[in-house]
Amino acid sequence: MAFSRRLRALGSLNRLKSSFAAQSAPPPKALRELPEPFNASSISSPSRRLLFAGGLAGSLALGSGVVLCKERKDKAAKKEKEPEVKQLAPGFKEGEKVIAFADVQKHDSIDKGIWVTYRDGVYDITKFVQNHPGGLERILKAAGGQIDPFWAMYAQHNVASVKDILGEYRIGHLSADEYANLPPPFDPYQTDPKRDPELVVQAAKPFNAETPLRVLAEQEYLTPTDKFFVRNHLPVPSGSLIDPSTYALEIVKGEEEDPVKLTLKDLQDETRFKRKKICAIIQCSGNRREDQNSVAQVEGLTWYTGAISCAEWEGVALKDVLDSVGVPSTLGMESELEGEDDQLHLQMEGMDRPKVGEWRDTKGFYGASIPLAWAQDPRRDVLLAFKMNGEPIPADHGAPLRCVVPGVAGARSVKWLSKLIVAEEESQSHWQQNDYKAFCSSITWDTADFSSLPAIQDMPVNSAISWPPAKSLVELTSDGCVEMKGWAWSGGGRGISRVEVSADGHNWTGAELSRPPGQSLTRTWAWTQWQANLPIPEELRKPGKGVKLMVKAADAQYNVQPESIESVWNIRGVLCNGWHRILVTIKPKAVSRTRFEHGYAN
Amino acid sequence: MAFSRRLRALGSLNRLKSSFAAQSAPPPKALRELPEPFNASSISSPSRRLLFAGGLAGSLALGSGVVLCKERKDKAAKKEKEPEVKQLAPGFKEGEKVIAFADVQKHDSIDKGIWVTYRDGVYDITKFVQNHPGGLERILKAAGGQIDPFWAMYAQHNVASVKDILGEYRIGHLSADEYANLPPPFDPYQTDPKRDPELVVQAAKPFNAETPLRVLAEQEYLTPTDKFFVRNHLPVPSGSLIDPSTYALEIVKGEEEDPVKLTLKDLQDETRFKRKKICAIIQCSGNRREDQNSVAQVEGLTWYTGAISCAEWEGVALKDVLDSVGVPSTLGMESELEGEDDQLHLQMEGMDRPKVGEWRDTKGFYGASIPLAWAQDPRRDVLLAFKMNGEPIPADHGAPLRCVVPGVAGARSVKWLSKLIVAEEESQSHWQQNDYKAFCSSITWDTADFSSLPAIQDMPVNSAISWPPAKSLVELTSDGCVEMKGWAWSGGGRGISRVEVSADGHNWTGAELSRPPGQSLTRTWAWTQWQANLPIPEELRKPGKGVKLMVKAADAQYNVQPESIESVWNIRGVLCNGWHRILVTIKPKAVSRTRFEHGYAN
Repeated sequence: MAFSRRLRALGSLNRLKSSFAAQSAPPPKALRELPEPFNASSISSPSRRLLFAGGLAGSLALGSGVVLCKERKDKAAKKEKEPEVKQLAPGFKEGEKVIAFADVQKHDSIDKGIWVTYRDGVYDITKFVQNHPGGLERILKAAGGQIDPFWAMYAQHNVASVKDILGEYRIGHLSADEYANLPPPFDPYQTDPKRDPELVVQAAKPFNAETPLRVLAEQEYLTPTDKFFVRNHLPVPSGSLIDPSTYALEIVKGEEEDPVKLTLKDLQDETRFKRKKICAIIQCSGNRREDQNSVAQVEGLTWYTGAISCAEWEGVALKDVLDSVGVPSTLGMESELEGEDDQLHLQMEGMDRPKVGEWRDTKGFYGASIPLAWAQDPRRDVLLAFKMNGEPIPADHGAPLRCVVPGVAGARSVKWLSKLIVAEEESQSHWQQNDYKAFCSSITWDTADFSSLPAIQDMPVNSAISWPPAKSLVELTSDGCVEMKGWAWSGGGRGISRVEVSADGHNWTGAELSRPPGQSLTRTWAWTQWQANLPIPEELRKPGKGVKLMVKAADAQYNVQPESIESVWNIRGVLCNGWHRILVTIKPKAVSRTRFEHGYAN
Repeated sequence: MAFSRRLRALGSLNRLKSSFAAQSAPPPKALRELPEPFNASSISSPSRRLLFAGGLAGSLALGSGVVLCKERKDKAAKKEKEPEVKQLAPGFKEGEKVIAFADVQKHDSIDKGIWVTYRDGVYDITKFVQNHPGGLERILKAAGGQIDPFWAMYAQHNVASVKDILGEYRIGHLSADEYANLPPPFDPYQTDPKRDPELVVQAAKPFNAETPLRVLAEQEYLTPTDKFFVRNHLPVPSGSLIDPSTYALEIVKGEEEDPVKLTLKDLQDETRFKRKKICAIIQCSGNRREDQNSVAQVEGLTWYTGAISCAEWEGVALKDVLDSVGVPSTLGMESELEGEDDQLHLQMEGMDRPKVGEWRDTKGFYGASIPLAWAQDPRRDVLLAFKMNGEPIPADHGAPLRCVVPGVAGARSVKWLSKLIVAEEESQSHWQQNDYKAFCSSITWDTADFSSLPAIQDMPVNSAISWPPAKSLVELTSDGCVEMKGWAWSGGGRGISRVEVSADGHNWTGAELSRPPGQSLTRTWAWTQWQANLPIPEELRKPGKGVKLMVKAADAQYNVQPESIESVWNIRGVLCNGWHRILVTIKPKAVSRTRFEHGYAN
């Protein structure tokens, strides 16, 4: 291995360290969300395994993360045709030993040496384990066995530089026969629920999928639950964990206070808590990331415009619950200005965490926080929700209890809620500290300092065209217009004051707006739907002519969307709110027939 | 008068009607802030009077408002050299009668006929008064006398079309001698306070002036009180009105409740109300309007970047005062979502109102409102302030009591506060309903529907360069950088997360940020000051080369400024928050002297 390559690998290792640290303790900086390692829904035959290996090798690159965007998927598909049988795993050397899996299993402790397999490769990592960025405890879970399921879970491994490091410890490989007949590696996603096939899947494991454009265009305010976009960071908790009859929420009021437990029955007891319904958007802060990829590749799922949906959430006011367990109702609200520290936070923990087989990572749970003052503010309408569109919340959306924080990035609406903690600091989870933050365009992964920016909470104003679809043929109305519709939304409860559409970026036509009744302009949680008839300039009204349609919105605070995507481009690809533009083509008119007295003529 | 011209004049009259209505009752739409009718500080001699008339005639045009921007001032100055003596007032006809002012004074009622003078013209407006858009009562105040002071106060008259209408009623003129010797018209601004000569005056009457760029660049967080920008809509209240020893604030809790009065002594009684200090920006929503004028002329004062200043305000929490007089503390905070009407409002009235001589317009006071929930929200920090930078608030800034609403457009921080009203509707004042709203760029005065948009409250993110000054010569540092500094700010308490500067709009350099201690990112009322060393591209580092410097900011919610001014341009010229750009020129380097052993050589 060349020295320079080794140096590069070590640099990458340093980045990984902070990334691993992020899952258990406050790190200075780290990377990425946990992405999808593979698209195949199960691995049950040798041929699939080969396909997977070839596809994965083709789709991963140093520092690029593991999310398969459409283009990458295409590349991966091409690779599938030419599986590189001999290079299933890194570090292959001509003439290396064939090792039996039974021998690997014997090396499962520091005393006996630690061997693992990755795909068909066998590695003696005894000398490495003390340096494992994720800690000794975690790596020992794989000792004497396959590390594949762990790497699928902790996706930070899925970069070339980490594979290079592994390759250095290679001591041989399993025979093709034995590898083909090994039981498939444990799939932590095997208990995930079934999903609606119309969802636009961006990643299978963890499952991430957006609401189809058709639904965005056709729905009234509420997205049908089975078409509601899904953003999972980890496997969906299942079984007794989410059993409504045994579920209990733990509330930690402060370091010196005993935690309080409330069962679902407690929360649903209408003599204790008033029921509350709210029609609210949830939106991933990476929505519209695809547009950023058109400027330059960013990290993350390639969402189009559908990582946003709206539901009626029913539950109890978080404020009421905090009051009931004795959190002083003015603790966050009335704190005086005494610097950053005057802010108290409400940390939330989910039940979703890395698991492999029976083992569960006790530190890597999903977590987030919001300012305590927001949790206590009656006008922010934060909900502990147990119903979605009138039915119990389904598994994918946080059963049995989800904290719905309207107006705020979806990442803070913690699903499968297990614990609330009143604290003097924000959640120290990876997702709060080192992920959902928007750098300026000039910052690279090498210069990114996550501690320099606030966590995304209230989201900026955004809008998108849901109809017509991009790249479609559109028919002009008799007066030369294109009929358009879509959504607009802004964070913090700010309603939408204006939506405008244009075919040239200079002449704009106001759209008609509608939002659900009952939401005032300072407390709008649902989206505003818009429709417009956009007059197309005379010179563009020709069949086959390409026309760029665009939309921009202003919220009640008159925050506006910037013109370009370039100006909001950032390494993490979040908060993409430049004007939404799509290209459509004018459809040739149906041939009109002129009516004559005795028949028709063309 | 040609028919078409007459039609145009009548159209304009219709616009005026809504404008007048705005000063007393809720109108469907109306126009403009009250602008500055003339710049001369008093009119005491015939020659000045002539100058004024000529200057004014030159500076006004149909529908353009009356504000003298720099360019217009230049034009007006040119006109001064060629006074059109015979056309002091509209409607002059060769051979018309000379009328004595004593005769005018006899015609002061509907029975006797109503004559008025405007400059040297005499008009019989008996047939017009019933049609006066501002109502009969107001126009009768001028009967038998000069309308000049009224037109100076109600600046809606200062458009050519209104003068055309007046011209139709002309019956003669005063003799040049009599006109020259008339006592000067009453100046409603004569009791305005003295101001610091360094303020950059945008209009003299009412007084509007911005903080000098030098101060913006040099100050720490607080703007010295005498350099604090001034935005007056009307004459400054004076005398007993603002006497701290007799002052009382009236609070109307609801239609069926008796009003409560609190003297300044009551408010300052520390056994009743806890003192509160806050370091907060006040910014006019028209700040940076000049940039919009560079796209196309808009209505309003031509503010550069200095209609923003920061002071330490001291007073009592508005919330505490509302609590103390029995407004339920949760009235606005906990109201459930029941449509627009769920919002209660806190209306504010100022003591500033049109006055001519002893007469005061009882309906035309300055007024504004904010959501009641904001007034009651401890985290919005709304203050009833009686001190500014440690001293009693001076006359120009609202003595003796100003409502300081941090994070919100300056127009809602009502000065010379006389009354608070808890109400189910917003303030119906002109300035709340028909002025400070931001239309989309395609809306013209003919298509503007003020009721379609929310009043500006929380302001969008903005930033500006305070150093170097625009059009200046700049010296490069030894490593080819320009040293820059300026301010950034966003409404609603959102701190600033990023400021970036650039010389090309594509490559950006992050700026160092500083804000006063004690303000958290969700409760930042002061501005964030920034400084940066911007590397200038090699090819531009040449003496005499023009370089465009630009700045953009993102707030804690990651709202960003749009690239262009065009995209936020609006008829009223408000909320101009496109990237701030200035042009500077690279200064030739000082000739360097090389040190030799026995002296210096160039």
